[in-house]
Amino acid sequence: MIESYLAIPPLLGVLGLLVALGIFLVMNSFPEGDEKVKKIGDQIHLGAMTFMKTEYTYLSLFALVVIILVYLSLGQDTALAVLAGALSSSIAGWIGMYSATKANVRTATAASQSGAESALSVAFYGGSIMGLCVASLGLIGLGSLYYILSGDAHSIEGFAMGASIVALFSRVGGGIYTKSADVGADLVGKIEAGIPEDDPRNPGVIADNVGDNVGDIAGMGSDIFESYCGSMVACIAIASTYAITSDFAQADKEGMMFLPLALASIGLIASIIGIVIVRLFSKSSPANAMRWGTMGAPLIFIIAAYYLTNFLVESNPLPGSDGLDVWLAVVCGSVGGIAIGLITEYYTGSSPVIKIAEAGQTGPATVMITGLSVGMQSVVLPIACIILIIFISTQLTGLYGVGIAAVGMLSTVGITMAIDAYGPVADNAGGIAEMAGMPSETRVITDELDEQGNTTAAIGKGFAIGAAALAALAIISAFVETVSANRAEPLELILSNPTVLIGIFIGGAIPFLIASITMTAVGDAAFEMINEIRRQFKEIPGLLEGNAEPDTEKCVDIATSAALKKMLLPGIIAVSAPPLVGLGIGAEALGGLLAGGLLVCVLMALFMANAGGAWDNAKKYIEKGNLGGKGTDTHSAAVVGDTVGDPFKDTSGPSMNILINVMAIVSLVIAPLL
Amino acid sequence: MIESYLAIPPLLGVLGLLVALGIFLVMNSFPEGDEKVKKIGDQIHLGAMTFMKTEYTYLSLFALVVIILVYLSLGQDTALAVLAGALSSSIAGWIGMYSATKANVRTATAASQSGAESALSVAFYGGSIMGLCVASLGLIGLGSLYYILSGDAHSIEGFAMGASIVALFSRVGGGIYTKSADVGADLVGKIEAGIPEDDPRNPGVIADNVGDNVGDIAGMGSDIFESYCGSMVACIAIASTYAITSDFAQADKEGMMFLPLALASIGLIASIIGIVIVRLFSKSSPANAMRWGTMGAPLIFIIAAYYLTNFLVESNPLPGSDGLDVWLAVVCGSVGGIAIGLITEYYTGSSPVIKIAEAGQTGPATVMITGLSVGMQSVVLPIACIILIIFISTQLTGLYGVGIAAVGMLSTVGITMAIDAYGPVADNAGGIAEMAGMPSETRVITDELDEQGNTTAAIGKGFAIGAAALAALAIISAFVETVSANRAEPLELILSNPTVLIGIFIGGAIPFLIASITMTAVGDAAFEMINEIRRQFKEIPGLLEGNAEPDTEKCVDIATSAALKKMLLPGIIAVSAPPLVGLGIGAEALGGLLAGGLLVCVLMALFMANAGGAWDNAKKYIEKGNLGGKGTDTHSAAVVGDTVGDPFKDTSGPSMNILINVMAIVSLVIAPLL
Repeated sequence: MIESYLAIPPLLGVLGLLVALGIFLVMNSFPEGDEKVKKIGDQIHLGAMTFMKTEYTYLSLFALVVIILVYLSLGQDTALAVLAGALSSSIAGWIGMYSATKANVRTATAASQSGAESALSVAFYGGSIMGLCVASLGLIGLGSLYYILSGDAHSIEGFAMGASIVALFSRVGGGIYTKSADVGADLVGKIEAGIPEDDPRNPGVIADNVGDNVGDIAGMGSDIFESYCGSMVACIAIASTYAITSDFAQADKEGMMFLPLALASIGLIASIIGIVIVRLFSKSSPANAMRWGTMGAPLIFIIAAYYLTNFLVESNPLPGSDGLDVWLAVVCGSVGGIAIGLITEYYTGSSPVIKIAEAGQTGPATVMITGLSVGMQSVVLPIACIILIIFISTQLTGLYGVGIAAVGMLSTVGITMAIDAYGPVADNAGGIAEMAGMPSETRVITDELDEQGNTTAAIGKGFAIGAAALAALAIISAFVETVSANRAEPLELILSNPTVLIGIFIGGAIPFLIASITMTAVGDAAFEMINEIRRQFKEIPGLLEGNAEPDTEKCVDIATSAALKKMLLPGIIAVSAPPLVGLGIGAEALGGLLAGGLLVCVLMALFMANAGGAWDNAKKYIEKGNLGGKGTDTHSAAVVGDTVGDPFKDTSGPSMNILINVMAIVSLVIAPLL
Repeated sequence: MIESYLAIPPLLGVLGLLVALGIFLVMNSFPEGDEKVKKIGDQIHLGAMTFMKTEYTYLSLFALVVIILVYLSLGQDTALAVLAGALSSSIAGWIGMYSATKANVRTATAASQSGAESALSVAFYGGSIMGLCVASLGLIGLGSLYYILSGDAHSIEGFAMGASIVALFSRVGGGIYTKSADVGADLVGKIEAGIPEDDPRNPGVIADNVGDNVGDIAGMGSDIFESYCGSMVACIAIASTYAITSDFAQADKEGMMFLPLALASIGLIASIIGIVIVRLFSKSSPANAMRWGTMGAPLIFIIAAYYLTNFLVESNPLPGSDGLDVWLAVVCGSVGGIAIGLITEYYTGSSPVIKIAEAGQTGPATVMITGLSVGMQSVVLPIACIILIIFISTQLTGLYGVGIAAVGMLSTVGITMAIDAYGPVADNAGGIAEMAGMPSETRVITDELDEQGNTTAAIGKGFAIGAAALAALAIISAFVETVSANRAEPLELILSNPTVLIGIFIGGAIPFLIASITMTAVGDAAFEMINEIRRQFKEIPGLLEGNAEPDTEKCVDIATSAALKKMLLPGIIAVSAPPLVGLGIGAEALGGLLAGGLLVCVLMALFMANAGGAWDNAKKYIEKGNLGGKGTDTHSAAVVGDTVGDPFKDTSGPSMNILINVMAIVSLVIAPLL
């Protein structure tokens, strides 16, 4: 009976990919625009693909070393799983980027030729392809592996490890890329040369637009992919450690291990329905279409999950709980994710933003103080949500509950990611419209789309942090269970054990170190970019007058090589810390490291993402004409906040999510060695 | 035999106070200066005393509520101990402030009349009185209580709780006071009106100088006092939970409980010797005098501790360790404290500072990014020191080792605090010299003293954080032991217990909340100050021309009432969180709260203190003429960093130390109720 289930997730994944292909064909049939637009689009597309190719080269070498080490220490199946995870994530990122950089020009052209509704459709198609790829490739990869390895939990864990290594490189590398290009292009172009944002004379502007794709689409996608697979793997691992008793048969255990894949499968269907809803409603009211889609998909998922969970868990009861309890944990995660997103929206979009903007009236220092203060305050409510989710889900079904809540939060990743990825596509379209000299009406449309995209992106970031936190916690729980299952006596991480304490302090210091390294990396890379743009303005005759073309490729190259060079050190620290501490000091210290790392990563991720988002929007609030608008001292002060916020929200902050997940999954994978 | 020991610590404390009185009389015999200087000195003195009086009024009410609650729930002895702790800390702070505000005018006058050597002496005398008061009153209070209560550990814990409540108010209130006055006076005076720092026409300048005393002398003193007593109390509490066995007699246990008081006693003597060393060497080389004093005192202490520990612990062996082990733990703490101080000196005084200053060439945003990055990076090595101390000391003597290492670090607090408090006295003297229009040669001398003071203050801050971290950890250990001793089964804080996890997240979020509240408080209070100073410049005719006097008292009042209003909320959160979580959710959650709080408080304290110190010194580096010097854009950019750094290093950062200690000690005191 169970056997026939096992094929469903990968098959549904294939269906999801086919839907994505269909959407791609529809999107690709939209007109690309005139020669000028086409050329700009090609430059961005090529820049993004060049980055991906170079990144994947570095990544392959890094992954190869990891896979060999895994093969030697943990055997062939785990090594295969790492490879499968890395490949699935890479393919999802590649397809997503490819499509997004096809969708951006078509969005700009649609905005100028057919108006807002059509532009929204194209941009949303672009995002949907990424969303469906993430969800589908997760199901295909993890589902097939589960099928092939017949649910061998230990080996399957490698899949999440492979995905997390790709995420680390994409998120950190992408984050450094996008911000060095952004800061460099803005500083020389807008401030020194006094030309507008996205002006085609600026040599850094293509790199800036490439960066949006690299960071916000490929980086974000791999981040979510990793949490998505990590939470499923954690559930499988936790369920696999349950001992068989007279009440709890082997078949029951297998069913529980299968539940996350089953939930993700109906989540994919719900996401596809959600995408259809957005499509249907966008004709009458584009503004509400997204809201209906984002709310509709989880609702459908929750209802379907009720029947599925009761069906699967009725015959597979957890000790002390029934199907309803498991379903409630799923609901808890799903609702909690939305709640964290909405809180993020408040802190990066409402009165705190106005407070920061007003602080600009007394200069950049008060903008900084207010923004930092808002960021620090903004951690409290999301942490409260996480606490509630932990409390409720563990009360319902023990530590498995945390994992299944994370799966609940992430199952509708198809639609969530679609809406996240839509933002940068719209943002790019705006840039292309500016560079191609499209009429201002077009820019108004793309600006509106972009603004909406910024809000959904803020919600997406909050959601990603919440999901990553729960996924990491579930993986850590699985780590403890796995180590315990392999030992004579269970692994007890007692806080008053000095070894655990030492681990906690190590785990707390690592995020600060990684944040520091990535902040510095953006500064250094931006510095190279600034020098190159300055050089071109000086040495290329007629460039500023618009009579010569900038060498945009050079800037793309600088951002690419800087990003890839600088991401190696954080990558090595993240991947090597768990084996060093685990094998060097012991499993207790490693458990402490994960706990300290989890706490500090979640706090820093929320702090940095929300402070950065709030600064960004405070600047935009002033640019809309409030408090004197552009060109005032208040605006200059807000620009300082935004510049500091850039690496906060797009480089260092997001790398915190990945950091804890990488450390957690590497620990889980090496658990049999401890 | 033990009985006769018990009277030594309080008697030595009285001796220490007599030495402090002697130093006061010598210091007070230095000439106060002419009428103008005297008047300025009086204004600062009165402002400081007014603040202290108002603060102590609020504090008394708050303490009264706490004492009544403690009396009702834990009995008379504990309530008495809380009162004694609060009184001892208050008296130390009051005497220290009184003396410091007498020493500042005399330092300025000595600098103008007798030169550098004499000025150094007076300033150092001023600091020494504070140092000796902290050390002596700790011994008198805690020693007498130990004598009176015959070593009843539970009741004695109240002493540290009383001290920590005073510290909370002094540090947070003082921090808000000093920075609101500083930011307000600088912003309107230096930037808007274009008059120099400490110009007598600026109505906020007296409040600014009062603030240095309030924050850096009284605040810092109460902070160190609290760690000093907290670490001793923790050792007493941990030792008191040891069960009597055939190998371990009642007398042994009492000896171990007495050891921290004995170590602090010889630490006081070593400090007095250190002060004499500084005095002797300051004639030949004032620059080296302090170094010899700071290094000499711990050295003497370590040697004396060897004999003392071996004597006491030979007859009171800890299970599995001998006297040498305990002594090594003491050495480990003493050396570790110096190491953390030196690391702090590096990050706030060497190449990282130059890097921040150079980042000023590309504007305030890069100053911010570089400073934040330096601050984040600066946590790594101090955390490594703390890890080493934990590892070594617990290997040597178990969790008692962490407590006794903290005692080792803090025993020579007399000299450490003397050198810390010397800085603000010198700083004040510089301000007075400027206000009184003393010749520029005088200003050169006071500037030199001030600069040296800044370095020692940076070391002192690092030291304070390290000491607070260890003290808190020791108190937390005592909490776990105490709860376990009161229960049928021991309190096991297992990380994979969801209740513990929830506590960890609560504990991690509280420091962010407090940091946010205190950052905002500085901003709000500074805003009131700015408006008042602007009003006076506008409404008092002839003020800017130097023909009329500013209403400095009004500014002092504003800073006082703002600071006291704003410190209530953080105080209430810190004191009420442990009983709410402990009684509401349980001891496991409270244990988690303390662990999460400890980790995040230490990280944030180091991050904020070091980033703030580095920004401050980057500005000073430019002001010395580097990178173009004052008046350049680079300087303006560095000023932005310094302004953000002010609340970081003097308000929010230092409140982190106290926060974790308050939460820990309140938890320990309420442990019998759980």
